Amino acid sequence: MNIILLSGGSGKRLWPLSNEVRSKQFIKIFKSEEGYDSMVQRMYHQIQKVDPNASITVAAPKTQVSALHNQLGDKIGISVEPCRRDTFPAIVLATAYLRDVQGISEEDVVVVCPVDPYVDDEYFKALNDLGEIALKGEANLVLMGMEPTYPSEKYGYILTTDNQKVSTVKEFKEKPDKAGAKDYIAQGALWNGGVFAYKLKYVLDKAQEQIEFMDYDDLYAKYEELDKISFDYAVVEKEEKIQVLRFAGRWKDLGTWNTLTEAMEEDTIGNVIMNDTCENTHVINELDVPILCMGMKNVVVSASPEGILVSDKEQSSYIKPFVDKLDNQVMFAEKSWGNYKVLDVSDQSMTIKIVLNKGHYMNYHSHDRRDEIWTVISGEGRTIVDGMEQHISAGDVVTMQAGCRHTIIADTELHVIEIQLGKEISVDDKHKFELER
Amino acid sequence: MNIILLSGGSGKRLWPLSNEVRSKQFIKIFKSEEGYDSMVQRMYHQIQKVDPNASITVAAPKTQVSALHNQLGDKIGISVEPCRRDTFPAIVLATAYLRDVQGISEEDVVVVCPVDPYVDDEYFKALNDLGEIALKGEANLVLMGMEPTYPSEKYGYILTTDNQKVSTVKEFKEKPDKAGAKDYIAQGALWNGGVFAYKLKYVLDKAQEQIEFMDYDDLYAKYEELDKISFDYAVVEKEEKIQVLRFAGRWKDLGTWNTLTEAMEEDTIGNVIMNDTCENTHVINELDVPILCMGMKNVVVSASPEGILVSDKEQSSYIKPFVDKLDNQVMFAEKSWGNYKVLDVSDQSMTIKIVLNKGHYMNYHSHDRRDEIWTVISGEGRTIVDGMEQHISAGDVVTMQAGCRHTIIADTELHVIEIQLGKEISVDDKHKFELER
Repeated sequence: MNIILLSGGSGKRLWPLSNEVRSKQFIKIFKSEEGYDSMVQRMYHQIQKVDPNASITVAAPKTQVSALHNQLGDKIGISVEPCRRDTFPAIVLATAYLRDVQGISEEDVVVVCPVDPYVDDEYFKALNDLGEIALKGEANLVLMGMEPTYPSEKYGYILTTDNQKVSTVKEFKEKPDKAGAKDYIAQGALWNGGVFAYKLKYVLDKAQEQIEFMDYDDLYAKYEELDKISFDYAVVEKEEKIQVLRFAGRWKDLGTWNTLTEAMEEDTIGNVIMNDTCENTHVINELDVPILCMGMKNVVVSASPEGILVSDKEQSSYIKPFVDKLDNQVMFAEKSWGNYKVLDVSDQSMTIKIVLNKGHYMNYHSHDRRDEIWTVISGEGRTIVDGMEQHISAGDVVTMQAGCRHTIIADTELHVIEIQLGKEISVDDKHKFELER
Repeated sequence: MNIILLSGGSGKRLWPLSNEVRSKQFIKIFKSEEGYDSMVQRMYHQIQKVDPNASITVAAPKTQVSALHNQLGDKIGISVEPCRRDTFPAIVLATAYLRDVQGISEEDVVVVCPVDPYVDDEYFKALNDLGEIALKGEANLVLMGMEPTYPSEKYGYILTTDNQKVSTVKEFKEKPDKAGAKDYIAQGALWNGGVFAYKLKYVLDKAQEQIEFMDYDDLYAKYEELDKISFDYAVVEKEEKIQVLRFAGRWKDLGTWNTLTEAMEEDTIGNVIMNDTCENTHVINELDVPILCMGMKNVVVSASPEGILVSDKEQSSYIKPFVDKLDNQVMFAEKSWGNYKVLDVSDQSMTIKIVLNKGHYMNYHSHDRRDEIWTVISGEGRTIVDGMEQHISAGDVVTMQAGCRHTIIADTELHVIEIQLGKEISVDDKHKFELER
């Protein structure tokens, strides 16, 4: 089975655990053997369990690449969107990636699905079925239709010609109001969950109608020229031969704190104390200090280095406009080489804790407008500063003036306090270089 | 007017804003011209307003001295308890301090009151009256009796001979149950708020019955030998000539989050957003990152570098046993020279942000079991390391091996990141030295 996982989304609705570089799919809330898994980790492991030979490609914006490598390892295939261009360009690029980078035949089938629904193994078996139906070629596109559990106004609906397990699409309906939703459900309509399968060639041909390109590399280079257009609008609504596979298993969107906490196995994650007068209350604490909750009912509390949310669960779905107003400086991030956390922001300085995983290293880089001072607090490694390599261990201090090129290489897990000093400290003030060795 | 302010108390009921070194009287929650005042600052300013010539002495444990200097300035008179010995020894020591350090006559009167009730100017006028009644010498001790506003089980009661403004004490009653309290109130009883006045000689003579001492210095040296005994038990209950002054003005104990938040002028302090579905909710945020509250009713939220409390207001009075169980490492403190905040605690290292006020300096000290690294992030000053003085400013790094003596002197306000490295990092690992210059 070939799968494209669409990894998009901003982090606002699950603030403060999500941010500009950590969308909701990277929040670790699902209990696993070694701690907690994120949505993307959970889904990745579920696919591997159902089909150990599955070829998985994640279609993701550039900003998510570090987090994906951090959570799924270095070997995961990622089709990187060089800029945001809606779902049609993203799916085309990923499809070209499958053919030209992964070497999959144009006649072979791929299943595309979002990375963030909360599902169980049955869902992945259905994905497999979806692929097999697409392979038969009776239709150009095979959708998965979710059996509705309530008259939701959140989803588009699919009207079918009959009520068979596999049937033909009669019509698509945009997100209706409640009455409309009830009416559709009475007609046997299904939710459109954005899950579908097709032969590579089909989508690549569709793309050629819009823009001429040779291969993946060529398309990547031209990506910015592509129109911002959704796959639904560009392909689905224009296609006449579409089949749909009914699916009645677990399929949940964990897009708000209210729904996310329903999927938690335990009431608390992290350093939390709740007294016994709390009811239906969930607390997720990513800080080192304790959270004490007393007498809370139907409440979600969540804390990260970026802020603290204390909300009635129902109210939590109205969070977005408030988060929009916040000055959302990224205070923590998972990188391909480890992670960092901002400890202090002062006028003209910033103090950061950096953890480098064993065997990893940062980009070799410099800054124009800030000096930096590294103090190693644990581990062993090497720094390269303006080409000079030096062994480092706990207690060592390395100072770097603005303009000087530098990197750290972790020979063991390495913990470093970085102090940045300058009038304009910004993540944009960075030049990357090839390592001279 | 001579006043002894008794500053005691642990910080548990108002966690996380109070801790071992910051009792509730140091929490800044009262809006003032320049920001927020603490209880002790509010009271100090109120006394100075009512009587600009008042001589104010604070009786406080050693652990509070830095915070008192930080909040009230270097000139405040402090009678420091070298160890905890209940209220009788503390009051005797402070009385000796008044005579021997402040030079007040033994025939003069002092008013003793706790530092933490929430009162207005009327209260201080009553303190003045209390002193004048004591000066007349009709009784050895003059108490202030608070007119009860409800049958409280929290206070001791004073039964009087009549209902005059000033009357004679007939009997003291320990904290009663509710029925008992109602009964006492029906008899015209008053709350005992621990506010009283006496001539210095009276208490100093009482003390001599327990332990012989020459003067303040001598008593200070012998302090540890004194019995742990309360002033009520040692003096009040044995004294036959006690008068009481009725007081009906504002007098509130702000000992729980529920009562403390009632005294707040605004619903929030610090970086807080509340949506309009919140009701009767107070949020105090001492962290730099925002707290977002949605749909909370009758709730108090409070956050500091030591933790986060989210509690129903009624429930907040049951906080103590939960706080007892926490590993209460002090994560921030006000010192006489400025303040510090713990930014990161790792295995074998700790990172701290230090702010030194202009013109101040730390003790000259060394550590046996940790190295330290200072990085100046703003300001100008000097370090002295093993006797060697050096000018420092932003970007300078100073490293100190275990055993080496060191201090920083702030020529302007100075901000420093201190990284501690060692196997056993402890506040007890400290030797102080005289500065060699």
